[in-house]
Amino acid sequence: MSETIKRFPGSVPTRSKAVAHNGLVYSVATAPNKSAPLYEQTRETLAAIDRNLAEAGSHKSRILRATVYITDMGRKGEMNRAWDEWVDRANPPQRACIGVALEDKDLVEILVIAAQ
Amino acid sequence: MSETIKRFPGSVPTRSKAVAHNGLVYSVATAPNKSAPLYEQTRETLAAIDRNLAEAGSHKSRILRATVYITDMGRKGEMNRAWDEWVDRANPPQRACIGVALEDKDLVEILVIAAQ
Amino acid sequence: MSETIKRFPGSVPTRSKAVAHNGLVYSVATAPNKSAPLYEQTRETLAAIDRNLAEAGSHKSRILRATVYITDMGRKGEMNRAWDEWVDRANPPQRACIGVALEDKDLVEILVIAAQ
Repeated sequence: MSETIKRFPGSVPTRSKAVAHNGLVYSVATAPNKSAPLYEQTRETLAAIDRNLAEAGSHKSRILRATVYITDMGRKGEMNRAWDEWVDRANPPQRACIGVALEDKDLVEILVIAAQ
Repeated sequence: MSETIKRFPGSVPTRSKAVAHNGLVYSVATAPNKSAPLYEQTRETLAAIDRNLAEAGSHKSRILRATVYITDMGRKGEMNRAWDEWVDRANPPQRACIGVALEDKDLVEILVIAAQ
Repeated sequence: MSETIKRFPGSVPTRSKAVAHNGLVYSVATAPNKSAPLYEQTRETLAAIDRNLAEAGSHKSRILRATVYITDMGRKGEMNRAWDEWVDRANPPQRACIGVALEDKDLVEILVIAAQ
């Protein structure tokens, strides 16, 4: 654990894809393939979360909280299917899922707080 | 305080209703009675938060941040009434309330981060 | 760093504009001028975040996570313009921006978690 702040750059210089501080990692991801349907976008988003956490010295088994934003709550089942296939069932995070507006063709965006 | 992660199972095996780590508790709740109006659903949701925090060794007087999701901002006053009756006025959390889409007949969902 | 919880009152007695605990500050802000357009409201909101962080012994260069709520994703560029002018480019936070319903004439609301 370190009191210093470590930032992991994403594709835009004015924000980070992950930030680590004092044993916690804060990260966000969307899917690279914006034309994919929700199930596939969720799989891609969770794979990006996996990569971000690995880079920051954490892992999905150490996620404390996940917040899932989707654009169509009527299709939440598709997101849940990808989530259920991906999640570490021995270590399930606290999770909330809400329907909101996202950028462009994003169908899902996921935030996590994980322990290092 | 413990560096280990403690997870409190909810009704679904792939997520937790609360997770405790390093002196903080992350929790989420909705109302069991989905046919109740917003005021009552908020009361029930806050009662569930109380139970989750107790189980995780915390209390509403130690909430740092609360995030309140409601489906109809035009009825925010009903949520606020239940909040104002419930909150520990000597220890008010930082709070945000936003209008979003929720699952099925949920009118409100509440997230908290609390100190143990 | 202190295990005690320090609360910073805002305009409403049942919630705080910022809460500090164990080296972290949780804060929220909206714009005072509700009739301003999104760019100006974002500038005002970020100025309020600056003031809240200063009061709680932190600074924008130490923000870990920012969550930006806006009411019209079609105007996200206006928010981004104010963000890009304001952010400490050497220390960009992890950020997410979603479209939601806000109170009254608010066009933007911003939450941060910052290290002290």
